[in-house]
Amino acid sequence: MASIPESHRDLLDAPVGSLATIGADGRPQASIVWFLAEGDTVRFSLNTSRQKTKNLLANPAANFLILDGANAGRYLELRGDVTTEPDPDYVFADKVGAKYGGVDLRNMDQPGQSRVVVTLNLVRVNAIDMSAR
Amino acid sequence: MASIPESHRDLLDAPVGSLATIGADGRPQASIVWFLAEGDTVRFSLNTSRQKTKNLLANPAANFLILDGANAGRYLELRGDVTTEPDPDYVFADKVGAKYGGVDLRNMDQPGQSRVVVTLNLVRVNAIDMSAR
Repeated sequence: MASIPESHRDLLDAPVGSLATIGADGRPQASIVWFLAEGDTVRFSLNTSRQKTKNLLANPAANFLILDGANAGRYLELRGDVTTEPDPDYVFADKVGAKYGGVDLRNMDQPGQSRVVVTLNLVRVNAIDMSAR
Repeated sequence: MASIPESHRDLLDAPVGSLATIGADGRPQASIVWFLAEGDTVRFSLNTSRQKTKNLLANPAANFLILDGANAGRYLELRGDVTTEPDPDYVFADKVGAKYGGVDLRNMDQPGQSRVVVTLNLVRVNAIDMSAR
């Protein structure tokens, strides 16, 4: 498994990143998402009714890009495939909510909707710093 | 063709965005790039030696996401297919360089490399503002 270099580990503390998936039409789709990083493992709590979740269940190929908000030439690109597990009791969702100041992700969901834990298994990591060149 | 709503047109003045393409392995790839917007047309000046350019020449499916640097819940997602034209004399590259304070993009390229004008033809536009919900 690819690993995230020390030079860019601070970006794992960024509030959001851009998650790209592949849609049914074969085109990339992207959206800004919350995430939780532990070591080299980046996870997302996604509502199964969302298009990005449907895309990942059909095709696990994913890309997560975290931009340095203070330096537009510095970013971390994580490529891989995801694995998806149910989170019926919001155990993982609550961990994500805790990172974001104690948000209850149940309040973002409609009755009857559910969440999954999406884990990005890294195949390739690109740690870019144009300003260091 | 899809169009960019007035509510998010200010993001077309952002310095960078995330360009996602599909690699030979079928996974999305993404990188932070400069861009030039005119009306609903977003264009990029890409060096043909770069992986993203090779990806787009093989598969024109693309996604461009521009995040509001001051509001992580607000962004513009542009989906479409690109068309690619040669830019042997750096005519378009110089327009891009002018946007970025007069940068000469020739200085970013190695001898023998060339550039193309990549135009994103919009199929779908998602203008997101979580803070407005």
